[in-house]
Amino acid sequence: MLSNHLQNGVETAKLMWSRLPDADPEADVGGANGELVREGRNEGGDVESLDYEVIENYAYRQEQAKKGKLYVGYTVVVKWLLALLIGIGTGIAAVFINLSVENFAGWKYSLTFDIIQKSYFAGFVVYMLINLALVLSSVYIITHFAPAAAGSGIPEIKGYLNGIDTHGILLFRTLVGKIFGSIGSVGGGLALGKEGPLVHTGACIASLLGQGGSTKYHLSSRWLQIFTSERDRRDLVTCGCAAGVAAAFRAPVGGVLFALEEVTSWWRSQLMWRVFFTSAIVAVVVRTAMGWCKSGKCGHFGSGGFIIWDISDGQEDYSFQEFLPMAVIGVIGGLLGALFNQLTFYIAHWRRNYLHKKGNRVKIIEVCMVSVLTSIISFGLPLFKKCTPCPEGDAGIECPRPPGMYGNYVNFYCANNNEYNDLATIFFNTQDDAIRNLFSAKTIHEYSAPSLLTFLVMFYSLAVVTFGTAVPAGQFVPGIMIGSTYGRLVGMFVVSFYKRLNIEEGTYALLGAASFLGGSMRMTMSLCVIMVEITNNLKLLPLIMLVLLISKAVGDAFNEGLYEEQARLRGIPLLESRPKYQMRNMTAKEACGNQKVVYFPRIVKVADVLSILRSNNHNGFPVIDHSRNGETLVIGLILRSHLLVLLQSKVDFQHSPLPCETGPLPNRHNLAEFVKPVSSKGIGISDIHLTPDDLEMYIDLAPFLNPSPYVVPEDTSLTKVYNLFRQLGLRHILVVPRASRVVGMITRKDLLIEDNEESAAVELQSTSVREDRQEDRILLWKKTDAEQPLLGLLLDR
Amino acid sequence: MLSNHLQNGVETAKLMWSRLPDADPEADVGGANGELVREGRNEGGDVESLDYEVIENYAYRQEQAKKGKLYVGYTVVVKWLLALLIGIGTGIAAVFINLSVENFAGWKYSLTFDIIQKSYFAGFVVYMLINLALVLSSVYIITHFAPAAAGSGIPEIKGYLNGIDTHGILLFRTLVGKIFGSIGSVGGGLALGKEGPLVHTGACIASLLGQGGSTKYHLSSRWLQIFTSERDRRDLVTCGCAAGVAAAFRAPVGGVLFALEEVTSWWRSQLMWRVFFTSAIVAVVVRTAMGWCKSGKCGHFGSGGFIIWDISDGQEDYSFQEFLPMAVIGVIGGLLGALFNQLTFYIAHWRRNYLHKKGNRVKIIEVCMVSVLTSIISFGLPLFKKCTPCPEGDAGIECPRPPGMYGNYVNFYCANNNEYNDLATIFFNTQDDAIRNLFSAKTIHEYSAPSLLTFLVMFYSLAVVTFGTAVPAGQFVPGIMIGSTYGRLVGMFVVSFYKRLNIEEGTYALLGAASFLGGSMRMTMSLCVIMVEITNNLKLLPLIMLVLLISKAVGDAFNEGLYEEQARLRGIPLLESRPKYQMRNMTAKEACGNQKVVYFPRIVKVADVLSILRSNNHNGFPVIDHSRNGETLVIGLILRSHLLVLLQSKVDFQHSPLPCETGPLPNRHNLAEFVKPVSSKGIGISDIHLTPDDLEMYIDLAPFLNPSPYVVPEDTSLTKVYNLFRQLGLRHILVVPRASRVVGMITRKDLLIEDNEESAAVELQSTSVREDRQEDRILLWKKTDAEQPLLGLLLDR
Repeated sequence: MLSNHLQNGVETAKLMWSRLPDADPEADVGGANGELVREGRNEGGDVESLDYEVIENYAYRQEQAKKGKLYVGYTVVVKWLLALLIGIGTGIAAVFINLSVENFAGWKYSLTFDIIQKSYFAGFVVYMLINLALVLSSVYIITHFAPAAAGSGIPEIKGYLNGIDTHGILLFRTLVGKIFGSIGSVGGGLALGKEGPLVHTGACIASLLGQGGSTKYHLSSRWLQIFTSERDRRDLVTCGCAAGVAAAFRAPVGGVLFALEEVTSWWRSQLMWRVFFTSAIVAVVVRTAMGWCKSGKCGHFGSGGFIIWDISDGQEDYSFQEFLPMAVIGVIGGLLGALFNQLTFYIAHWRRNYLHKKGNRVKIIEVCMVSVLTSIISFGLPLFKKCTPCPEGDAGIECPRPPGMYGNYVNFYCANNNEYNDLATIFFNTQDDAIRNLFSAKTIHEYSAPSLLTFLVMFYSLAVVTFGTAVPAGQFVPGIMIGSTYGRLVGMFVVSFYKRLNIEEGTYALLGAASFLGGSMRMTMSLCVIMVEITNNLKLLPLIMLVLLISKAVGDAFNEGLYEEQARLRGIPLLESRPKYQMRNMTAKEACGNQKVVYFPRIVKVADVLSILRSNNHNGFPVIDHSRNGETLVIGLILRSHLLVLLQSKVDFQHSPLPCETGPLPNRHNLAEFVKPVSSKGIGISDIHLTPDDLEMYIDLAPFLNPSPYVVPEDTSLTKVYNLFRQLGLRHILVVPRASRVVGMITRKDLLIEDNEESAAVELQSTSVREDRQEDRILLWKKTDAEQPLLGLLLDR
Repeated sequence: MLSNHLQNGVETAKLMWSRLPDADPEADVGGANGELVREGRNEGGDVESLDYEVIENYAYRQEQAKKGKLYVGYTVVVKWLLALLIGIGTGIAAVFINLSVENFAGWKYSLTFDIIQKSYFAGFVVYMLINLALVLSSVYIITHFAPAAAGSGIPEIKGYLNGIDTHGILLFRTLVGKIFGSIGSVGGGLALGKEGPLVHTGACIASLLGQGGSTKYHLSSRWLQIFTSERDRRDLVTCGCAAGVAAAFRAPVGGVLFALEEVTSWWRSQLMWRVFFTSAIVAVVVRTAMGWCKSGKCGHFGSGGFIIWDISDGQEDYSFQEFLPMAVIGVIGGLLGALFNQLTFYIAHWRRNYLHKKGNRVKIIEVCMVSVLTSIISFGLPLFKKCTPCPEGDAGIECPRPPGMYGNYVNFYCANNNEYNDLATIFFNTQDDAIRNLFSAKTIHEYSAPSLLTFLVMFYSLAVVTFGTAVPAGQFVPGIMIGSTYGRLVGMFVVSFYKRLNIEEGTYALLGAASFLGGSMRMTMSLCVIMVEITNNLKLLPLIMLVLLISKAVGDAFNEGLYEEQARLRGIPLLESRPKYQMRNMTAKEACGNQKVVYFPRIVKVADVLSILRSNNHNGFPVIDHSRNGETLVIGLILRSHLLVLLQSKVDFQHSPLPCETGPLPNRHNLAEFVKPVSSKGIGISDIHLTPDDLEMYIDLAPFLNPSPYVVPEDTSLTKVYNLFRQLGLRHILVVPRASRVVGMITRKDLLIEDNEESAAVELQSTSVREDRQEDRILLWKKTDAEQPLLGLLLDR
């Protein structure tokens, strides 16, 4: 009964998973000791599990044997050098994107303003065509060149760092597509931002630097071969993410915290300092570039560009009375954010399953339609708005602003010269500028409530529709736009209600922005710090926190965060850090269900390997051997990918089914051979071409298997298994019967080994001798009963 | 040969550990599957390992069975409520300490300044006596009331969060001693700070709130019983640490990062938000209190107090030329910091092993001598310094400052009224004020190089001597003092060298402070953010980073960080996050050595339990049972502390050596009974009093053991074992033979169980039924061969 019930639980769970849109249980989730199997997807985005465990096989031990203390120091130097390069690369990429976007947008607006002096219709046509051209270039790059560069990329990167590799996300072409696609889509005025894509860009740069260039033509320089484990790559990508955020918002601390809180699933305190170093390098690079641009060499760039909305001259103080309207902002943010997540989820689901299946042409047409719609709304709506006379008092802000400049108070379709159009000020403007205007202090009563409401509704709709189209798209800036609009609305009411207080509408706009991002992305501390860094005002920290706390709580009551929803939609199965409630009552054995475990014997016929690999889609196989007294013994785990490497290289084939006993194996493999390039598929079973002679030969798997995979006894609770799996970043755990005896106990004192310089020196000298001995141990391990049955074991159960 | 070599490695390692001062291998590190054994220490500071693993025994399952979904929500509410309370408590404690210190110090200085108008000698005597009285009160509290409150407490808290409980550190008396001791020692003008103690204070408040008050008289209110696992307590203490830093520096973000980087060994992203919330509450509490004090209700508090050295009006920009002097500051910081660590280590070692063994009287005399010395130097040295005329240009800073006020340009032993004594400005002043003066901008040429050098040498020596005396002592503020002095010195040279640049000496003082702290404490990101938050200047972030990077690297070349050195000295064996290099070539079995494992059978005679517990000092014992076909089977691990609870309560004794078969056990225990109160010793074996009848009875251990302890196969590499142990916060790992077969494989898809509302509801209804069944499973598990030998198994091997 009990196990029946639990079995039901597992079934229900599988059912639930299968109910996810686009997640087909048969195709996606392997059977038996199955895996997430590679399966073709629309946008070339297959997913595959990653293994952050160190595979301590023969090649690994060979590598280790070669390493001395010096090598460790060398590794550290290379890691720091790479952190430096990632920082510089991401910083330059960010500057390039910003420079291009600002120049395109600036040129577009100044041209349009010139033309509308004569004809508003001609101005509109030009404006629309420029937007269309930019957006078209972006969508063309994405659809024909780099499909994995669509969207923000953060869900995929988050998945990568959680242990799921989506094919294509870290390729060179994706990087190029992301950079140029971003320029087109943001420059083209769509309701999206360039910040999310910058995170992806940073991750791509990091990954490519780590493997020495693009997957196809990568440099095989020796010094890069140290990054052969998935774990090292993961650390690099973490650096890249932080660098991306640091570049996007010029927020080095925020970048580190974003990487820490939002994207990574594992964290080491040593890594933090390196990540922070990368972020600071980005800050220096960006600052240097901006200093260089100050002299006007960069065209329209310089006045706008990087989002730093300095509101340090805003509200300094706050009274307890203001907590109520701030709480209201938090609630609105939670509701609108959750609604945003839900709407985008449905629309993106519909797009994936219907619209985008019809091919690239449909995607292009869709984006173009969105672009035209955006142009019409942003140009057309302000035309219906009556202009407002400029305010009387002089607060140091020019009204109306001179044409072709950035600033508040845009004169657009106004009868008089000393009037401004408040809707155009936020709508017919680059988003960065619009936000600066919304955040601006000392501009009380600049906007009318109907204008803000109109803008809120229209922009919210545009953002929902734009999200999920085939262009690179970040959600930060649209989120800030939406949030600051209703924030400013609330601020206006507060100003008119509490008349005597020194209240700035701009501060409320900032809180609104924080609340919407909190309600949608559900980030907490990192968002808080990013908001503080972009506004350069430490004093508002407690208020931002309060608002975020409320909006996140409200949002969590409805659905998951934006990135989690999107990851689910894309079939990226993220493992949360906390085990599910139901797991407390399940055991490891129950979680496996009644799977049939597929074994390999130690020495196996090539033909059998091939047929086993073909007959299932498992990714790891236990290898068993016979002990002296005839008992079976699990000697390790061999990965499908390693078997495929062995089958392809053929050098390890042998004629007899006996373990080769002629001393240590020649150094035929190095670790790099076994490593799959990031984001690509590696060798497939169809790449293997064997002659009939090959098929009759044998392989001794002992040198290639992972001799100590993690194991759990069969009645361990699933909570514990989950923690083990999640904390250590595993891909396989073997479930074994309870042990019959205990050989020893390891406690803290057994692990307190002091770093001993002398013994390390001895180690270094005796390395080669010991290496051979270790080899002997493996190879001699049961020379006596070498005549084990080959497939008998497989058929045993 | 190989294993011989490795055995040697282990021996060497043990030897190394035994070479640590104050760490006696026989007494400290148990034999066999030994533990860190409780052993009396000078200052009442025993250490004991903690177990962050969830012990899933009978009582735990009973607890779980009672819990529904609602309970989970309830737990969350209580956790947040506690976070709120910790924030408020720590904030109030910080305000109280600051208020008291500022008032004592202010009163002291104003009195002294009044008297020296008439007689410098009388002034000195009064100054010295006030200092002595304050310091004496502090040392008396520490020696007679709360010995665990001496020092900064950060090494002990770091140890606690790493899994080592030092007895006494989280008691109520320690909290009280820390607060009042801090007031005395800081108010008494010693060369130490109140920031480190505040971290300890925050941790104590958190721990006490979590268990509902002091250990002796704690409230057993129901809602607090949810914090029964070491893991929950750890999270609370983490919150407390962050709150302490946030309160000390008014740096909420810095507090979170400090907790994250420096003190915790485990981190979950859910925790971050709660920690941040606590920090923000502290910020609000402190801000409110300071707002209240602005009106002058708090005596001398208000103008000084909390360290916020706002240098936002300082240097805005920096040129690349300045990087060289900044790098020099980094190198100096690394060297002086490493020297500081080394000197304090030797002196503290000498104190522990010779001086402090002579009893409390010696400790008191020592502190008094240090206090008198400090008074003589800080009063006497400025007397020898010739006064300087006040600067001509009016920069808005009064010179000399009016008596009794805080500020620059102290007129002390000067012939004329418009002169000031630069040495007195930094020496004869509260430390907060001195730092503010050193950091101050627009005061170029205020200090002469000889004065700064004199101060540097004298204060450095005082700080080294004071560190380790029996008073609460933080190292932040002295570190900032030392660093900013040489920073300012370098700044003076830079100002006179690069004349044309807009350089502020105060900025260099800040960098110097960062470099010394980096060189001594080796913190990175948290220190960076703390420096930014206390100086309220985001723009200097990259410079602070550069300096820290250099000083940490230089310092690391010589020795470990201050807290690690001190933890080592106090016999707190911290496990670093990274396994040692040697572990790569060792296996789990080799790490155990040839220990003899002490087993328990499932049903054991009380007399045998007692004799086994007496015969060794192990803390965990494997329990074995016989399976149907006569094989032995490891059914779990029982902890010494749980056995002692069973022996003391006696309710589980039974007359027959058969497993009790009469249905589910009555609800005789709840989880709280098995939990040792924080920082106290729990039940000792001497507390057990059994009659001869009791000794003849039996206990069935099955309901009380942890049925699924983590296991590793015997030839797993020690690196993997280390990662497992460290990542999951374990206390014991069982080393077992290789498995003979694999029951199943767990991969990511097996762990992807969707939260299912319906199944949860079903679970809730069927809880009681299922609970019984689970019980049955345990109790019926091998009813058939209940006649197992009792001690036979123990003697088996």
